[in-house]
Amino acid sequence: MTSAHWSEYRLHRRVQFYELDPAGIVHFSWFFRYMEEAEHALWREAGLSIAPPGAEVAFPRVSAAFDYHQPLRFEEEFEVHIRVVAIAQKTIRYACLVTRAGARIATGTLTIACVSRRPNEPMKAVPIPAEIASRFAAAASADLEA
Amino acid sequence: MTSAHWSEYRLHRRVQFYELDPAGIVHFSWFFRYMEEAEHALWREAGLSIAPPGAEVAFPRVSAAFDYHQPLRFEEEFEVHIRVVAIAQKTIRYACLVTRAGARIATGTLTIACVSRRPNEPMKAVPIPAEIASRFAAAASADLEA
Amino acid sequence: MTSAHWSEYRLHRRVQFYELDPAGIVHFSWFFRYMEEAEHALWREAGLSIAPPGAEVAFPRVSAAFDYHQPLRFEEEFEVHIRVVAIAQKTIRYACLVTRAGARIATGTLTIACVSRRPNEPMKAVPIPAEIASRFAAAASADLEA
Amino acid sequence: MTSAHWSEYRLHRRVQFYELDPAGIVHFSWFFRYMEEAEHALWREAGLSIAPPGAEVAFPRVSAAFDYHQPLRFEEEFEVHIRVVAIAQKTIRYACLVTRAGARIATGTLTIACVSRRPNEPMKAVPIPAEIASRFAAAASADLEA
Repeated sequence: MTSAHWSEYRLHRRVQFYELDPAGIVHFSWFFRYMEEAEHALWREAGLSIAPPGAEVAFPRVSAAFDYHQPLRFEEEFEVHIRVVAIAQKTIRYACLVTRAGARIATGTLTIACVSRRPNEPMKAVPIPAEIASRFAAAASADLEA
Repeated sequence: MTSAHWSEYRLHRRVQFYELDPAGIVHFSWFFRYMEEAEHALWREAGLSIAPPGAEVAFPRVSAAFDYHQPLRFEEEFEVHIRVVAIAQKTIRYACLVTRAGARIATGTLTIACVSRRPNEPMKAVPIPAEIASRFAAAASADLEA
Repeated sequence: MTSAHWSEYRLHRRVQFYELDPAGIVHFSWFFRYMEEAEHALWREAGLSIAPPGAEVAFPRVSAAFDYHQPLRFEEEFEVHIRVVAIAQKTIRYACLVTRAGARIATGTLTIACVSRRPNEPMKAVPIPAEIASRFAAAASADLEA
Repeated sequence: MTSAHWSEYRLHRRVQFYELDPAGIVHFSWFFRYMEEAEHALWREAGLSIAPPGAEVAFPRVSAAFDYHQPLRFEEEFEVHIRVVAIAQKTIRYACLVTRAGARIATGTLTIACVSRRPNEPMKAVPIPAEIASRFAAAASADLEA
């Protein structure tokens, strides 16, 4: 059997000018987008798109959080390390660590839910399709190290 | 029947922190969003939504431009004055002037096209539905004054 | 004179087109900006700017979180209710509730720290200046109701 | 003498989820950020940062425009080709072409000005420092091909 179980991804990224605030540091809202970028890269790595054309399910966010330790500045290169820490029937939970040259910049969490996607109907939680759930495996540990 | 022909709208707005760049001035990309906010407010004023649920047409942007005269800073209040300057069979063209306390901050233009909105098909330009086109009238002049 | 102690603010807001994702709902990262907009409006209400020109202190975010209950859609009007729930020597903690017509949309928290602002020096936590801290008071309860 | 004259840069990029609008295509405001990303990458290639710590000059945008030919969708890879087309004493003008697999997606222009950067003073146009201007050369042609 092959290792078709993805648990984590490390995204390499550079700070862009439009992500900065007047103090010259990345605005805190951007870390949530960085985390999502890493999540979608993890899905691609697993051979999936999180939002393919004509999809019958979607994955809205249920909760998201970040603790900020140090700022990121213009043109700095950094890494976004995301890890699947739990897969339930209808939800996936991730942990995330942002680092710059090994220094801890920010730590985050993200929980997403699987919902059916019918036009003009309220979103309703449904089980994650097997062909998606089977691609991922929760990591043994949620502790991300720099 | 009366003059149900809308040509312009003045949006009152305040600069938000997340719109600023490291120099403490609004990032130039935001003016395009300000212009679009004013456009959508104009449509609401005319009794329309530019993107109602289940719409059969959509209005992607064909071209957009801004000239920047003076910067906007944190918490400043400003006005976005948008005006319809041309309505063709499939396109609408706007002029836009951003001012702060009467001072000219930026001048913009925007052209949108009407396209049919069929899932998984390429966008195709179509005539603007009469119930939409009939609500707007091009202003006699494109010159917006502070 | 007395009641110069602000604890909360209710921001009224409309969903803008550029805040939406391909599912037609507000992207989760925007709620952090909504919360910050309400925070800065609270400060203005208290007679302050959180980032005045030439300020010697700044207020970077230490942690931020949101739980999402229901989506927001295009042009919907909603309310962002922010409340000071704790003031320590160097930090302020807020709770936040986003509602639409009384329905709970999302609940958030935000902690900010006061830092000295010296060009080209690392940020260092310092006590919140008295003229700022004296303007706010923690609310008796952190429970925000729709 | 060596070829220390940079004229153009090709940025390779992928569409991110948070850049999409409800029609599933990149929101038009993002192309201005793509163009700026390519510009800053060009400056790095030339050994410069457009906003280094402690800089005495800054480069605000004077005008920016895009014509949109075709949409970009989720996860598509594309190229942003930027070229210096004119260097004057105080301004630089760029042309920009966004392509996907050789297809023309959008064409843009951008003009920036050099200003002195004194805290709490109005921005004032000044000559581009020689050590910056000498790094760039206007391309012979402004025509960018896919």
